[in-house]
Amino acid sequence: MSEPTRVTIVEVGPRDGLQLEKSFVPTARKIELINALTRAGIRRMEATSFVSPKVMPQLSDAAEVMAGMERAAGGVYVALVPNLKGTQRALACGADSVKIVICTSDTYNRRNVGMPLEDSLKSCTEVLAAARQAGKIAEVVIGLSFGCPLEGPVPEDKVIALVNRVAEMGYAEISIADSMGLANPRQVRSMMRRLRREFPRAHFSLHLHDTRGLGLANVLAAWEEGIDMFDASIGGLGGSAVVVAGATGNITTEDLVNMFHEMGVETGVDMGKLQGAARLAQEIIGRPLPSHVLNNGTPAQFYQKVREDEARKAAQRS
Amino acid sequence: MSEPTRVTIVEVGPRDGLQLEKSFVPTARKIELINALTRAGIRRMEATSFVSPKVMPQLSDAAEVMAGMERAAGGVYVALVPNLKGTQRALACGADSVKIVICTSDTYNRRNVGMPLEDSLKSCTEVLAAARQAGKIAEVVIGLSFGCPLEGPVPEDKVIALVNRVAEMGYAEISIADSMGLANPRQVRSMMRRLRREFPRAHFSLHLHDTRGLGLANVLAAWEEGIDMFDASIGGLGGSAVVVAGATGNITTEDLVNMFHEMGVETGVDMGKLQGAARLAQEIIGRPLPSHVLNNGTPAQFYQKVREDEARKAAQRS
Repeated sequence: MSEPTRVTIVEVGPRDGLQLEKSFVPTARKIELINALTRAGIRRMEATSFVSPKVMPQLSDAAEVMAGMERAAGGVYVALVPNLKGTQRALACGADSVKIVICTSDTYNRRNVGMPLEDSLKSCTEVLAAARQAGKIAEVVIGLSFGCPLEGPVPEDKVIALVNRVAEMGYAEISIADSMGLANPRQVRSMMRRLRREFPRAHFSLHLHDTRGLGLANVLAAWEEGIDMFDASIGGLGGSAVVVAGATGNITTEDLVNMFHEMGVETGVDMGKLQGAARLAQEIIGRPLPSHVLNNGTPAQFYQKVREDEARKAAQRS
Repeated sequence: MSEPTRVTIVEVGPRDGLQLEKSFVPTARKIELINALTRAGIRRMEATSFVSPKVMPQLSDAAEVMAGMERAAGGVYVALVPNLKGTQRALACGADSVKIVICTSDTYNRRNVGMPLEDSLKSCTEVLAAARQAGKIAEVVIGLSFGCPLEGPVPEDKVIALVNRVAEMGYAEISIADSMGLANPRQVRSMMRRLRREFPRAHFSLHLHDTRGLGLANVLAAWEEGIDMFDASIGGLGGSAVVVAGATGNITTEDLVNMFHEMGVETGVDMGKLQGAARLAQEIIGRPLPSHVLNNGTPAQFYQKVREDEARKAAQRS
């Protein structure tokens, strides 16, 4: 085992979180949220998506967001893209990295992006070529790596075969995704161990949802297998309305960051500012978010609060 | 590493969950919940507490609950006890096991049970003797094993020293508790590894709260270290009202059971019936509980639902 001492948190709230919102979040507020995340120390972020506004009206202001947001030195601002055309738009808007999704399931791929898997693979080639030509990063997401709603549990070999295709194309940044929250830690451990062994030149990251409450346990298993990059969403944005019931959002950024900090793993993120960004996200969408650390604090914050309460009580007594 | 292939789920909702409820749950409903859990296959359960009704009015009906509930063959019905007197009452009511709490922190112990740690240790001796005489089990909970609100992070050595005291008394069943949700997986792994190594004749279990969302990640780390018994609360009972905000309950039984089932680890629990018990708990307390698997289903239930939706759509088309 080689547990990384430093990990990269990829903030996906402005993209994966907001695309699950029913109402359109004003461009200025999106930019405000992105800026708050950057100021909290986030250095890799899915800022928006260049998927067709017809498909994703919530993110139809992708160009404006990219133009208006602050950029940190060394920050990697990622745009989700569906194809070459989207890639060209994203690159023209100054994306540092373009990210395309391909699903392990041909059935689902046809439903999700309206084309067979083989056509999506052609798009992957085009996206990579365009990114390279522009001197930018291209990333590929292996969607439904652990389970497919239409095909059921996904055999490891199927993921390996698809990773092999994109690795042969030349993709070095590969995200293994569980957007339905179907993975379990044993499966994650086995998958990540095998991927790292079979593709030593690729860099893998993990995209998890907390649908069944296994998000952070899955992170732990992957981290213990050497994975050092994880997607997460500020406040748990993208989860359900009002209560945790039906929460299907990404794992929560501040809960993830807290786990790593408590384990002595560096993230480069300032927790206080991150919680500020989570409060901002909550204010923007106008409802409580399913975050633990936003609401209950870190252990250090908890101890501090108890000390303050004790001091207040002592002062009242005297 | 020796990962157990079967684990025991200790249901603590009727005790730790309901004691955090503001209003008194009628005795008949408590019994109904306990019976539903027994029918779901739960074979170890904190049914109630024989702490003074003045301290814990929510559980003032301990004797009635113990007398009225169904008991499964082979089931271990545990009662929390504060001292010898409570033990005698619990044993008279037919408790199979009595469980006493002692805190790592003398400061907190004085606050929590109104006596110095040394006096509590004397109580532990008395409780063990009484249980032995009655041919019943005695268990001890090492409270605040990972952090203390008043003293801050708890050094491992302090826990080891206290475990040593109770092990020398003759306690074989020792629960390591993190009721404030302060533990992290690295800390849990280190602690459980050391405890199992230094006390090979003791049987350790783990009591976790999900305050910072690390409950199941902590379970995973402990399970990988050979721990095979975990407390959990049906539906996440004992968590916050209304939203996840401020949720400080135990880890959720059905989320825990789902994690183990998905990893191929036996629990003896029937998930469908367990979810029924969680719905009952929700109905009893009259608000949604912070459970993932109650609301989103297991992966198998998710696949089944998609299949049914697909079949319905196909039927509508034809």
